[in-house]
Parts: sequence; C-alpha cells; structure tokens
Amino acid sequence: MTDATHDPALRSWVSSANGHGEFPIQNLPLGVFAPPGGAARVGVAIGDVILDLAAAPVAEDVREAAAGPSLNALFALGAGPRKELRARLSALLAEGSGHRAALEPHLHRAADCALHLPARIGDYTDFYVGIHHATNIGKVFRPDNPLLPNYKHVPIGYHGRASSVRVSGTPVRRPKGQIKAPDAEAPRYAPCERLDYELELAVWIGPGSALGDTIPVGQAEAHVAGYCLLNDWSARDIQAWEYQPLGPFLAKNFGSTVSPWVVTPEALEPFRIAQPARPEGDPAPLPYLMDEADQSRGAFDLMLEVLILTPAMREKGMPAHRLSLSNARHMYWTVAQMVAHHSSNGCDLNPGDLLGSGTISAPDETGFGSLLETTRGGKEPVRLPSGETRRFLEDGDEIILRARAAREGSVPIGFGDCRATILPAN
Amino acid sequence: MTDATHDPALRSWVSSANGHGEFPIQNLPLGVFAPPGGAARVGVAIGDVILDLAAAPVAEDVREAAAGPSLNALFALGAGPRKELRARLSALLAEGSGHRAALEPHLHRAADCALHLPARIGDYTDFYVGIHHATNIGKVFRPDNPLLPNYKHVPIGYHGRASSVRVSGTPVRRPKGQIKAPDAEAPRYAPCERLDYELELAVWIGPGSALGDTIPVGQAEAHVAGYCLLNDWSARDIQAWEYQPLGPFLAKNFGSTVSPWVVTPEALEPFRIAQPARPEGDPAPLPYLMDEADQSRGAFDLMLEVLILTPAMREKGMPAHRLSLSNARHMYWTVAQMVAHHSSNGCDLNPGDLLGSGTISAPDETGFGSLLETTRGGKEPVRLPSGETRRFLEDGDEIILRARAAREGSVPIGFGDCRATILPAN
Repeated sequence: MTDATHDPALRSWVSSANGHGEFPIQNLPLGVFAPPGGAARVGVAIGDVILDLAAAPVAEDVREAAAGPSLNALFALGAGPRKELRARLSALLAEGSGHRAALEPHLHRAADCALHLPARIGDYTDFYVGIHHATNIGKVFRPDNPLLPNYKHVPIGYHGRASSVRVSGTPVRRPKGQIKAPDAEAPRYAPCERLDYELELAVWIGPGSALGDTIPVGQAEAHVAGYCLLNDWSARDIQAWEYQPLGPFLAKNFGSTVSPWVVTPEALEPFRIAQPARPEGDPAPLPYLMDEADQSRGAFDLMLEVLILTPAMREKGMPAHRLSLSNARHMYWTVAQMVAHHSSNGCDLNPGDLLGSGTISAPDETGFGSLLETTRGGKEPVRLPSGETRRFLEDGDEIILRARAAREGSVPIGFGDCRATILPAN
Repeated sequence: MTDATHDPALRSWVSSANGHGEFPIQNLPLGVFAPPGGAARVGVAIGDVILDLAAAPVAEDVREAAAGPSLNALFALGAGPRKELRARLSALLAEGSGHRAALEPHLHRAADCALHLPARIGDYTDFYVGIHHATNIGKVFRPDNPLLPNYKHVPIGYHGRASSVRVSGTPVRRPKGQIKAPDAEAPRYAPCERLDYELELAVWIGPGSALGDTIPVGQAEAHVAGYCLLNDWSARDIQAWEYQPLGPFLAKNFGSTVSPWVVTPEALEPFRIAQPARPEGDPAPLPYLMDEADQSRGAFDLMLEVLILTPAMREKGMPAHRLSLSNARHMYWTVAQMVAHHSSNGCDLNPGDLLGSGTISAPDETGFGSLLETTRGGKEPVRLPSGETRRFLEDGDEIILRARAAREGSVPIGFGDCRATILPAN
C-alpha cells in the first residue's frame, strides 16, 4: 500500500494505540459515544481512548455532518470526505503531529464511555451469503435439499427488523414464541429452548440511491460507509415452526447486536483479496452482478471469532472460550454484489441502512457460525472448559464476536467486541 | 352507537361533507398535506376540503404533537387524546358550531393540495391473514400443500421494506430482476413480466412497546393509531425464483403504496363485527392470541375494492373498471391478534410502524385481491370493458384501491383512493 495511513511504521502519540491489536492508528474507526455525564457524540477509536471528533480540526463539511449523535450524515457524505477525514485524523494523531496538546483534553478513556448505536438504522436487510452456513442450515431444515437451486444465482436476502438492533453490551432477553415439537399435535407458547447466535459481518450504507434507480456492481462500493460485526440472534424452535412460507420473523426480530465501531473501507483496504474462485461447475454470476475489479479484490481476509462466557466460567474467573473461528473469505457473494442485487429492482438504499452478510461459517466445524451447525441441530453438545456443555444458549451466557484482519506487511486491526448476555425470558 | 360523533343526523357547515361518500363529518381522518406553495402539515379531511389542524383550537398536547410534517407524534399520544381530538373536531365542524368564520380560511381544496405519507415509517411488517389469498397463492406455489400446517396457529408475517413505501399517486416503476422460466436452465435479469397488485388493509401503530415487553391481545387495540389501504405491489416471476428459503425480497421492495388518510379506530367503531367463527375443526387460538372482547368485535365489515384504468380506457374516456370486491371480514386473524403476535417475542413496536394485513381475498373470484389469483397464475386473462385483456399489469395501467364502510343506521365512510400508475422499466 502506498497510502501513508497504512504505513506499518506509522505510530501515534496516543501510546496505547501502538501495538494495540484492534485500534492502532492504521484503523481509526468511527462511532458514537458518550463520555461520563456527557451527551452522545461522534468519536474515533484510537488505542484505549476515543477522540471527540468535534474537537478535531477537520474539514467543515465533516464537522457539520458529525455534529449530531449519529453517523448518518457522515455516512451520506461518501467516500471522498471520508478518505480526507482519515488522512487528516492520521496526521493529527501521528507521532510528532504538533496537535497533541490541543487534542489530548478531548480524548476519553473508552472504558469510561457509553457506546451507542453508530447510526439510526433506516432498513435492515439480512443476506445469506455464507455458503457453508446455507448448506449446513439447509441440511437441518431440508435434509433432502440443503442448497436450493437459486442459491448460486441469487444473493439471497430478506428484510429484518431495524427497531430491535442494539449496540454491543445491551443484554438480549430470551424470547417466547410458538414452539411445536415435531411429534406434538399443536404448538405451545413458551420460552425459546433453542436460542442461538449467528456470526455475521455487517455493512453500513453510505450514499443511498433513489427509488427506481439501480446501482451497478462496479459502483456499489461507493455506497458502503463501513463495516461492523453483527450477531443475528436466532430462536431456532420458533423459526422452524413459523418460517414457511414467508421466512423468519419472530425467530429473529427480538434483538440483533452490532459492534459499536464502524471500520471504514479504507482501513480494510490492505486486507482485500480476490473473491475465491467458484467451484468448477458453479454458474457464472449474471452480468449485473459481475465486475472484474470486484472479483479481483471484492472479498476480505478477515478472521471472525465467536467466544462464550457462561455464568459458571465467570464465577471461576475463566476467560471466554472460543467456539468458532471463521473468516469473511467464506462469503459466496461480495458486498458489492449484495448492494447491486439489493438495488437491482429499483429498491432505494439510504445512509444508515444496515446489511447483514448472513452467518459466515468456515467449511468445517471449527468455524461454524452458529450453534445449530456446531451441535448439529442440538444433537452433539459442545463441551466447555468449565465442564459444562451447551446444545443451545442458556440464560446468563454471554456471546462475544470478534474480527481481526492481519496480513504480512500490515499492522493488524480489529473491530472491537460485539457482545451481549442472555437474560431469562419474562 | 351513543357517541355523538357518529350520529347520522350530524351535519357539517362544510357543505361538501354532507352526503360525501368518504369524508363526512362522521369520519374525520388525519393526514399530511401541503397546500399550493405551502409546507407539509397535518390536516383533517372533511368533504372536498382539508382543515389545517394547526388552525383549529384543539388541546395543547395535540397541537404540539401535530406541529410537524408527520403524524408520528400524534400517533404516539394514543387513544385518549385522539378521541378528544375527534370529539373536538366534530364539534368545531358541526353545523351551528360558531367556529365557521374562524376556520373557513384554513380549509384547503383537497384537489389543489399535495398529499404526503402520513408518517415516517419505522418498520413495515406485512402479515398474511387473508386466508382465501393464502390458500389461492399456496395453490400456485405449492399445488400439493396450499395452506401450510402453521397457518391456523400463527398469524404469519414477515418484514417488508419501509423505505420504498410511497403515498397514493406516486407512480411505481416496473422492477427488473432475476426471472427463471420453469423450463429455462438459468435465470436472466429482465423487466418483470408478471407484475401484480395486492389489496391490503394497513394498520398504523400508535403508542409502541419496549424491547422485551409483550402486548397482551386484550390491550393491543390501544396500540393502533388508525388504518389505511395498502397496495403491496408484487413481481410474481421474481418472487417465484427468489423466495426460498427466506421469503419475498426484491419481489416486493421496489415499491408499496398507501392511501394518504388515516382513518381512526373511532371512525370505524360502528363497522366492527365479531370475528367470523372458525370453521369446524380449526384449532383454537393459543391463549396469548385469544381475547373474548376481541373475538366479539375485533373484525371489520369494510368493503375493499380494486379498480383498473388502462391507457386505452383513459383515452376513450372510460371510467376505471372494478376488478374485485372483497371485504376486511375475510381476515383470519384480527388486528389485535397481529399486534399481540408481533410483540409476543418481545419485539418492540414504535409509533409510525406500519403493518399490512396481507392480501384480503373474498372466497370467490369476484373478490380476489391479486391478479395472480383472478387469472389463476396468468392462465385465464381478465377481459376489460375496453376489449383489452390482462394476465398481469402493463405499463401505464393504474390500479386504484378503495374501502367503504356502510351499515344500516350509520353514515357510510371511505378511506380515499390508494392509487398508482405503472411506469415502464428503466
């Protein structure tokens, strides 16, 4: 990379940033935070602290767009101003910048701050581009027919619930719902007994598109503002009974969790890779989904991790236990293809819309992105270091998603935790 | 009805209201309009005119809530203030009220005004409670298994796209999308060839519920702010190919049309009826969906009509032709059951959320709510008075939905048109 903001030699006068596994000066993710006793505002994560963006001498349009308690207006500005902001922040925070004295009073210890949802979500769409997940789930719900005939032609997606998306750290209440055991004559209304997580990459939409317009796949990246982690909590028993014929509804909309820091496309630039070749015999994407540049650099080499911390582990002082290690490279469709497909019928996108990738599972069980897959529908419990087992989640369990990009010659970056604890049903 | 606002003898000093089939003084629906050259604001439809609500001497909380260009804040106030507002408006607009001179300057000819979306839609959920529609559609997509086993237990619903809902009068562009003929080897990306309407009743949510809370079915009506008509335009060829396994997506989200006037629960009070008895053998609703009062008065006797006006008919000066006459009584689940179910897992509802009923078809073909049903999947074209036929919609066709409530001893009311014209694909 010739871009100076990625220079591995670049160090910050914020000393905790240097060697920080997630937020070195090469990352600079944006978010919304509230310092103790203060109002919510836009900030930049750097090491263990957050810089209040309002205090930074940045371009006027950025300053105005970042004045409110959400990133929507900043997202709407698009790639040009965002790249300038990155270059400017990198210069301001670099060792020897001369701005240390002015900015230091506007740094807040992240651990003391409340983190908020980065943007007001207009619409939330969840895709299904993790092909190993789609195959695994398909086996549970449709043993004869795991991967449907449309899968390799259509970036399958559906609308989720925007209102119930919450930022990392917000507990999730176990839902109740209609559950029907396969051998039961009728359903009953009861607390979910098969509560699960889903490991997803989330995409924040920047500049939108007008109703009736389409976004060519080659221009789709210009509509992406950044990335987060997303846990699309799922009630498998509710889902199995309700999902035909119109798809998941109450099995999903009781809560979804996103990580607080929006990692920009610029920060992820060094970790882009070619879209993995389609297996021999897979159909070529239709022309509206096909772009050479996207194929050559549209995927990410981004490790995705799921950890669990149970009440017993917490009591014993044990660390969270890794349930899964996957990678964003297992997406069958690129983000550009998701965006192009979403608008291919003229559906309008808007700044602050959220797209989920769908669960990203690795090909084998060490990297499955949900318990439904890891425990094979609950039949093979996971054993935890505490001696406990889990078929599905229990009350008090905390699930932590993490993402980390690392590559020879680049400083590794992370996304920050996407975590939430399960509260018992009401 | 003992409520004076429904008195059939009640007349308005707005002369066009008396005998008006839709907006007599017994209706008083709320909406957002802009007079020529003016900004969007909240108004009340009365006869052929709209009263600017800001000019009416109403309660302070209502005045403040109605100050913006949307009904969200008014919806949030709930039933108490809304009922007081209705009583007050009825008194102000009644013959001999003494307010005529003060209010007359604030009446705007509806034909001169632009009508806006009544509220900012948070989330849009579409249900599937028209059982005749579900059965008919089921036959097309799943001949062996039209009505799935969950249908009579679960008020089936799914999330739709909020961003692409537009107010009546906004043209709808024919979508393009992936289409795969049953005998084709692969899909192609092309303009939809099976464009359809769907006749639905829409529900606006008033006071919401917090994430994690449930709304008991017996209290669900307190969360309803009012009703509109909804045309859930559908691309049947895109739908058939994309909808498995996660439900309709691009087949629906290119545009949905709502009528501009929000008819209040109070205005519909005289037209409530008992929920039709479930056929012998149908399962009883689970307790969380069962409320005696709701069963005895939770349905509506509300005629629902679909009309078409083609370019040829328009040229010949012919009136719109009725394609279908259905009735809201054909809903298998009540609105209270939809609301209770939606929140039964703790999903939060918010003021301005929009719920669609799903297509409401009558039991026979004179009242089918979509062309897919009326033409039996396109196999039996509809003949129009112009000599034309339609299997599905053609460019330039205008679809008009209307609703009318009429009952012995009450003044009939209507909803106003929900109409839109199809533009050719880009």
